[in-house]
Amino acid sequence: MSQYRTFTAADAVAYAQQFGGVESPDELVDAQEIGDGNLNLVFKIFDIHHRSRVIVKQALPYVRCVGESWPLTLDRARLEAQTLVEHYRHCPQHTVQVLHYDPALAVMVMEDLSDHRIWRGELIKGAYYPQAATQLGEYLAQTLFHTSDFHLHPHNKKALVAQFINPEMCEITEDLFFNDPYQINERNSYPAAIEASVAALRDDSALKVAVASLKHRFFSHAEALLHGDIHSGSIFVADGSLKAIDAEFGYVGPIGFDVGTAIGNLLLNYCGAPGQLGIRDAAAAREQRLTDIRELWQAFATRFARLAATETHDAALAAPGYVEAFLKKVLTDAVGFAGSELIRRSVGLSHVADIDTIADEEMKHACLRHAIELGKALILVAGQVDNADELLIRVRQYS
Amino acid sequence: MSQYRTFTAADAVAYAQQFGGVESPDELVDAQEIGDGNLNLVFKIFDIHHRSRVIVKQALPYVRCVGESWPLTLDRARLEAQTLVEHYRHCPQHTVQVLHYDPALAVMVMEDLSDHRIWRGELIKGAYYPQAATQLGEYLAQTLFHTSDFHLHPHNKKALVAQFINPEMCEITEDLFFNDPYQINERNSYPAAIEASVAALRDDSALKVAVASLKHRFFSHAEALLHGDIHSGSIFVADGSLKAIDAEFGYVGPIGFDVGTAIGNLLLNYCGAPGQLGIRDAAAAREQRLTDIRELWQAFATRFARLAATETHDAALAAPGYVEAFLKKVLTDAVGFAGSELIRRSVGLSHVADIDTIADEEMKHACLRHAIELGKALILVAGQVDNADELLIRVRQYS
Repeated sequence: MSQYRTFTAADAVAYAQQFGGVESPDELVDAQEIGDGNLNLVFKIFDIHHRSRVIVKQALPYVRCVGESWPLTLDRARLEAQTLVEHYRHCPQHTVQVLHYDPALAVMVMEDLSDHRIWRGELIKGAYYPQAATQLGEYLAQTLFHTSDFHLHPHNKKALVAQFINPEMCEITEDLFFNDPYQINERNSYPAAIEASVAALRDDSALKVAVASLKHRFFSHAEALLHGDIHSGSIFVADGSLKAIDAEFGYVGPIGFDVGTAIGNLLLNYCGAPGQLGIRDAAAAREQRLTDIRELWQAFATRFARLAATETHDAALAAPGYVEAFLKKVLTDAVGFAGSELIRRSVGLSHVADIDTIADEEMKHACLRHAIELGKALILVAGQVDNADELLIRVRQYS
Repeated sequence: MSQYRTFTAADAVAYAQQFGGVESPDELVDAQEIGDGNLNLVFKIFDIHHRSRVIVKQALPYVRCVGESWPLTLDRARLEAQTLVEHYRHCPQHTVQVLHYDPALAVMVMEDLSDHRIWRGELIKGAYYPQAATQLGEYLAQTLFHTSDFHLHPHNKKALVAQFINPEMCEITEDLFFNDPYQINERNSYPAAIEASVAALRDDSALKVAVASLKHRFFSHAEALLHGDIHSGSIFVADGSLKAIDAEFGYVGPIGFDVGTAIGNLLLNYCGAPGQLGIRDAAAAREQRLTDIRELWQAFATRFARLAATETHDAALAAPGYVEAFLKKVLTDAVGFAGSELIRRSVGLSHVADIDTIADEEMKHACLRHAIELGKALILVAGQVDNADELLIRVRQYS
């Protein structure tokens, strides 16, 4: 039947004809491989009018950017498809639609989002999407609330945990977020000019205790089905629209990890803005990122609390006041995880274009140092941050 | 092959002959059903010399004390046997040895502990086992450390979580600990004379928020493979010996739950002592319980920290100072869970003999009220308790 084989463009077209759910499938004639990520083949499928119609995505059995020497489970295709399907159930307006998937071929067919753009690129060039931050907060609230203990029957929650056990992808996060930047490791990647800042990470024992606590929460706090990698490069935006993609890191983990990854990537843009834009535009972009973060948190927390008020099925968790107490803990977690995202994207294997594409080397180094210092500060003060405004005060304090 | 059927005494003898691992199995001739619990058949198997040699335990497909109207999964026999086998690997000196188990028959054969006695009964009559508290701390440290993220490879930890998903038994705890006592429920059981104390539980909104947080941690904090029900009735003691039994509630949950259940049951004995013993003996027993709690925590925390110093495999969690920070959180959790054990054993379905067997009704009611008030206080102050001495101060304060 469907034994794994690596797709050619022709395979992708044939697959899209069969499973793309388009009218007149015979009109699908061409495929373009557009995968710029690290892990997968991604084909855009065109019809005879040169219009792209659907996406065919296939997982490769190794890390694409490293090569066959770093094998990686094909089961991540199932995990990604099932995470997206589950998130789409709860938030179809902000989740890419999966039209079909096949675990054995590690392939899925998704809706085409060619009328959207990757948010990271838009943020870097200073293009503003007024509803994006709020929509991202809505996505996080809907998907995380509906897969949490507030909403799910305990039996279903436990089945969800089992379904989304994701050892290999989690291990990447466990290593790249919480280990590599705080030790000498050949996977780390940063300019020699910032060595002093990086060395200081390795020598900061209070920081390492706080990072251990973050990692332990990532390991053990099974709160909701996370996207697991919800950075601005996993988000498509268009006028009034936002769609999450790329959920192969999905697993049941701490809600603050998704929220913190989202906030952390807005802060990475904040740190990189002076290197990407003129002085005035950079200052405006920075203010906008802070506003984005406030809006994201407000949208998330307000929706989560509203859902909790009306859709909490658990009698104990429905206690008046509990969801507010829980959201405080989520913010603490999110601030810490945001800090670890700032650091691992500056020091570790995988960087972000917000800073990496800065042409001026001195400026780039200054931005990297800023991201590291801000990340450190957030990890250390996370327990004292009680609301979004306090978070913004901290960000300004370390800028 | 081994389809499920309820064992007769003769079945139990035949099974013990086959799987008991005793010399001269033909000498096993007789069985006595000794199950006084709520859930299972337990046969003691005797040889021709009237010596008991092994135990055969079989799960029934319903709650024994309620009847066939409350069905209960037979999978709990697998979960119990596998929990005990896993705990025995890490702490053979304090875990009953499982000689054989069969998931389909929901049966296991265990070592006979006729030379031991149930700790609860000994505590009630004022018999003192000087090493028991320390040995229980050792059991908790060894079993919980070795099944935690400190020690296990992340892949193995995730496999452990999946192996020990235990929805039906967890649901009993979720309901009986965290829901029933705080609402009107027909399962609750308490004398009308203490209605005011019980009604106050239902009206205490701060308490209900704290209990929601405890339940949420029970739901989602997958820290280690718990015993899940480690009260003084699940513990055999003899001179210098302590053995944990009855692990059908085993699942991967918060470490503080096991520690808190153990502490909570020592406190139930503390609350019941004035009704069980003369004034002087009761006062001495109370002081001894407080000493037991200090010794239990010291043994647990000291061993856990020592194991962490030498056997932590995770590079981040090995950060100097982290295990101490984590143990503080475990104590906070344990104090809260101990409080919820005090309350649910006073108000809910399942009581303890430490208080229930008090003959004088007035005295029994006073002890129940004490347990409820102490439980409430512990749940509310748990976050402020930083060490065992502070816990003991709180206990005295509410006595």
